Amino acid sequence: MENFVNLNELSTSDIQALIERALEFKSGAAQPTQTNHMVANLFFENSTRTHSSFQVAELKMGWQQIMIDPQTSSTKKGESLSDTLKTLGALGVEFAVIRHSLNDWYQPLIAEHSDLMPRLINAGDGNGQHPSQSLLDLVTMYEEFGHFDGLNVRIVGDLAHSRVARSNAEVLQRLGANISFSGPKSWYPADFDQFGIYTELDEGLEDLDVIMFLRVQHERIAEIENTDFSPLSYHFDFGLTQDRYDHLKDTAIIMHPAPVNRDVEIADSLVEAPKSRIFQQMTNGVYARMAILDAVEKD
Amino acid sequence: MENFVNLNELSTSDIQALIERALEFKSGAAQPTQTNHMVANLFFENSTRTHSSFQVAELKMGWQQIMIDPQTSSTKKGESLSDTLKTLGALGVEFAVIRHSLNDWYQPLIAEHSDLMPRLINAGDGNGQHPSQSLLDLVTMYEEFGHFDGLNVRIVGDLAHSRVARSNAEVLQRLGANISFSGPKSWYPADFDQFGIYTELDEGLEDLDVIMFLRVQHERIAEIENTDFSPLSYHFDFGLTQDRYDHLKDTAIIMHPAPVNRDVEIADSLVEAPKSRIFQQMTNGVYARMAILDAVEKD
Amino acid sequence: MENFVNLNELSTSDIQALIERALEFKSGAAQPTQTNHMVANLFFENSTRTHSSFQVAELKMGWQQIMIDPQTSSTKKGESLSDTLKTLGALGVEFAVIRHSLNDWYQPLIAEHSDLMPRLINAGDGNGQHPSQSLLDLVTMYEEFGHFDGLNVRIVGDLAHSRVARSNAEVLQRLGANISFSGPKSWYPADFDQFGIYTELDEGLEDLDVIMFLRVQHERIAEIENTDFSPLSYHFDFGLTQDRYDHLKDTAIIMHPAPVNRDVEIADSLVEAPKSRIFQQMTNGVYARMAILDAVEKD
Repeated sequence: MENFVNLNELSTSDIQALIERALEFKSGAAQPTQTNHMVANLFFENSTRTHSSFQVAELKMGWQQIMIDPQTSSTKKGESLSDTLKTLGALGVEFAVIRHSLNDWYQPLIAEHSDLMPRLINAGDGNGQHPSQSLLDLVTMYEEFGHFDGLNVRIVGDLAHSRVARSNAEVLQRLGANISFSGPKSWYPADFDQFGIYTELDEGLEDLDVIMFLRVQHERIAEIENTDFSPLSYHFDFGLTQDRYDHLKDTAIIMHPAPVNRDVEIADSLVEAPKSRIFQQMTNGVYARMAILDAVEKD
Repeated sequence: MENFVNLNELSTSDIQALIERALEFKSGAAQPTQTNHMVANLFFENSTRTHSSFQVAELKMGWQQIMIDPQTSSTKKGESLSDTLKTLGALGVEFAVIRHSLNDWYQPLIAEHSDLMPRLINAGDGNGQHPSQSLLDLVTMYEEFGHFDGLNVRIVGDLAHSRVARSNAEVLQRLGANISFSGPKSWYPADFDQFGIYTELDEGLEDLDVIMFLRVQHERIAEIENTDFSPLSYHFDFGLTQDRYDHLKDTAIIMHPAPVNRDVEIADSLVEAPKSRIFQQMTNGVYARMAILDAVEKD
Repeated sequence: MENFVNLNELSTSDIQALIERALEFKSGAAQPTQTNHMVANLFFENSTRTHSSFQVAELKMGWQQIMIDPQTSSTKKGESLSDTLKTLGALGVEFAVIRHSLNDWYQPLIAEHSDLMPRLINAGDGNGQHPSQSLLDLVTMYEEFGHFDGLNVRIVGDLAHSRVARSNAEVLQRLGANISFSGPKSWYPADFDQFGIYTELDEGLEDLDVIMFLRVQHERIAEIENTDFSPLSYHFDFGLTQDRYDHLKDTAIIMHPAPVNRDVEIADSLVEAPKSRIFQQMTNGVYARMAILDAVEKD
């Protein structure tokens, strides 16, 4: 593919190919070509985890990195994102990994040019897409179960403000999973009914294959603290407690995009419990990103 | 050469050799030696474009980069530039690319030591020199015309505050070009008469081979906005409009150090017009900087 | 060794092995294995000198660096150091070089896990340990004298607030050196009596093999300026003047962790005098750190 910006625009066979490629890189069945590509990581928003993961993936691919901090750069001189990218392209930078607070920042760029240089990789936009995170979630599920068809997946928490919830729900539905949602009703967007059903967290726990908790944003915790809510009551109502953990099947897995607010979304003692795949998700993130780099490199 | 700090101290044959080396790197006729040198890029002022360009050049040369942000570093502890460089030298850093707000920051260092370690490359000092930018301008003209002798070059805009205007004018005159200047009369330094003549922008456009627009600094736009001037009237009086573009010869080229204030120095629609070499300048900047690194490496 | 956090926990034979390894790397008698390890440098406090030195050492070892600035990272989202490190480990980062303002930041991590990933290298904690600095000091003395036994070492200055003074005193005593201390009596911690004796600076200068001046912190200079003291009087009372320099043996060496406050701890004209080893300490710092990386890699 030319650019990697949005998982929902990819066919299920393209997604399947990315997942398998990631697992080939993980198992060592595939090796990076070690072509000396130049890539710039432009994080207009801080995201250490995603930034580090892309750095590791790029190094494993044998790519060379140009270090730019857009938060202290000439974008301050009022240069547009389009001009910044044209400049990087003129310098010989072939790929740009971009995190930006603007929803769909890549749309006008892709609409304008058919053969962009550098090629674009979306490392998260606004509260819209975070496709590399979605891909690593899919890799983690597929590694565990070997298929998506008929998997019972529950997504729990701040559905309205999560980058990954909408994207995951859409893709998982296409791949044949059965989706359900739990969490504060006020954080449930009505149009999520198209992807699955809203249910009480304690309903049907024993039938789930995957339960994915979303991070409660600090800003929202602050909000909560100004209201009747508290982190503790959130944890009791919508978090993973030992009791809920025990209701899950032995083969069920627990996911979270991290960093976890311990004792809010998940009890501190359960973050690394046997059913948890949270740190394995991070490991898979490197391989998922290698598969993405491999795909945009190859086209 | 030992250090690369000032284009005006180099002979025309040295300059010619740098230009030809840059074009050899561009064409692939010359290959970097890929010696594993260590270089530190010290940008005491932000300059993403120049910083990125040097990074790409260094990577293409096969050099290893030490990442230091002088804006958050121990220079805050009151360490002098001289001591910072001695420290880097003691660590094994062989070359330092430095951007600094102080005019001629390198003079006392070079006066003090005959065999500096690290060797110095000036990436722009105060409102004084910006020799790697000047060199890439020369490379772009030479690539286009194959010579400088008798070229009609116009430099337009904020001559008083430009890092490159004075340096370019001096060097181009030595290389045999005919220089003229346009722009607000109040931004024209009287001593520029030694390099060429001041003329109205619309005078003699049809005779020009090169027209180089200088960036209007934001700070100065702010000033202008506090006066009777406006970006729009600046564009009308001293910018590249479609009408002026049409008066230029088909073989003439348009240059700008970038980033362009679109619709101020140059009409938005003309930034990438056929006569524009603005993005090509950026591409040549990488090869010009490789030639500089090659020259200080070889001595 | 598994982690490198504290020189005082190492046996004298381990310390001796590190010193000899550093000097082997310096002489070229040993070559790094050039294994492609991944390392993250996490400087929660600024320390350009130490950070640069580790970077050079890592590059010479052939390691790959993940660039993270903890001062603008997700640690802001309230993530604990333990979770940050687990994340890096999950990403495949094998080693973490950490500078942190918290004394003994590594203790709970090492207590919690027997086989940490990434392995930890302490680049300075609070006003506690700075073991790589201590090691480079030892390398510099050993390179000069070939032994520690019976060396007369004087440590001068802000003993109470120095990261290195306590650690150096403890280790040097174990290695057989005779330690004495000078400086403002109010900056002398009573329990230093266990390592050596407090004496007037001008006492016994002619018997010293090593005189090590500690940096006066700017914060403390500010304090001083609010009192009866002055940098000049500090220099006169506790600094290296030409007169004191002349009293030292020809074979004595002068050390300082740098950066020097010129004309405070040491007269400007003496910083690079023949008996000074200050810049040689920095050079040895790279080899000392290579020996550290080599040791944690090998275990």
